[in-house]
Amino acid sequence: MVSVIYAHPNPKSFNHALKEAVIEVLESKGKNYQLRDLYAMGFNPVLSSLDFETFLSGSVPEDVKREQEIIKASELIIFIYPIWWTGMPAILKGYIDRVFSYGFAYEEKDGELVGLLSDKTVVIINTLGASALDYGPSGMEDCLRKTTDTGIFRFCGMHVIEHIFLYAVPYVSDQERKDMITKVKSLLEDLL
Amino acid sequence: MVSVIYAHPNPKSFNHALKEAVIEVLESKGKNYQLRDLYAMGFNPVLSSLDFETFLSGSVPEDVKREQEIIKASELIIFIYPIWWTGMPAILKGYIDRVFSYGFAYEEKDGELVGLLSDKTVVIINTLGASALDYGPSGMEDCLRKTTDTGIFRFCGMHVIEHIFLYAVPYVSDQERKDMITKVKSLLEDLL
Repeated sequence: MVSVIYAHPNPKSFNHALKEAVIEVLESKGKNYQLRDLYAMGFNPVLSSLDFETFLSGSVPEDVKREQEIIKASELIIFIYPIWWTGMPAILKGYIDRVFSYGFAYEEKDGELVGLLSDKTVVIINTLGASALDYGPSGMEDCLRKTTDTGIFRFCGMHVIEHIFLYAVPYVSDQERKDMITKVKSLLEDLL
Repeated sequence: MVSVIYAHPNPKSFNHALKEAVIEVLESKGKNYQLRDLYAMGFNPVLSSLDFETFLSGSVPEDVKREQEIIKASELIIFIYPIWWTGMPAILKGYIDRVFSYGFAYEEKDGELVGLLSDKTVVIINTLGASALDYGPSGMEDCLRKTTDTGIFRFCGMHVIEHIFLYAVPYVSDQERKDMITKVKSLLEDLL
């Protein structure tokens, strides 16, 4: 199965168009997929004391369990979200905080933390207001890869096979935005 | 005024002890301060379509306005939070997403985005499960500084004068944790 984890509040956004394009490719390839539209789901992103107590008691909060089952059943997970303040929107950051829990995403083994999701690959599609010139030479793009691809997904054993940065989205022409969508679709078609 | 923005769910946590220590120093120095305990406040971290509409109409959501007024009145802002998955807990990430809005934290001027909070300094106190050996040589600490200090605060014109990384907190001895608190207090005393 393929999971699509999508985090943008606006159904008229470019992120929404990207999500639709990704689903079009999945359907054209006859792929079994699950869309997790975090805003539409009203996902609660705040990891709480009650969550910690539940985890410590050996159990898992209901809404977290549902997401873990979907991720467990996925061989490919596609994340679609805008970069806000050099990171994920809070609703997605909290999805990671709550769903990628100890014992599900990683665990201690012989005094080392090891990832438990090593049979999964990840594709990340990001939109940015910043330009490639802002984020390339300054090293910010490298740091986004490091904090996300390495610090989150690689830590859990997952393999990030594509991390696409779509720069300056609000400032480019309609044609350039269409080209971005075409590029994402053809990239995904080659992967699937 | 000094703002203390604190994000940890557990009142028995080391983060809580750090927050108490910071407040002790502020009180001993007779400083006027405001504590923003995001978990205790039940702060809503999800930037929504309604928020965007409110901002576009030239207004500001009520809960965001309150925070903006506090930040506006502060010359120093102290952030205390654990690093979860190489970033802020979602509740704090969403505080940035919602409160540091266009027109308040930054704006366009002659085709460039400029920070609007240049009269403010920032101190960041982070706890980590990772060790300094994990995060130093690998460049992860540099990327945390880059994404947070540069990508968020510097972008708004703010000056990060201290970013303290307290490593391997769950694995060190009680005495080492006490020493961490002493270090933070003396550092803050020198600053104030």
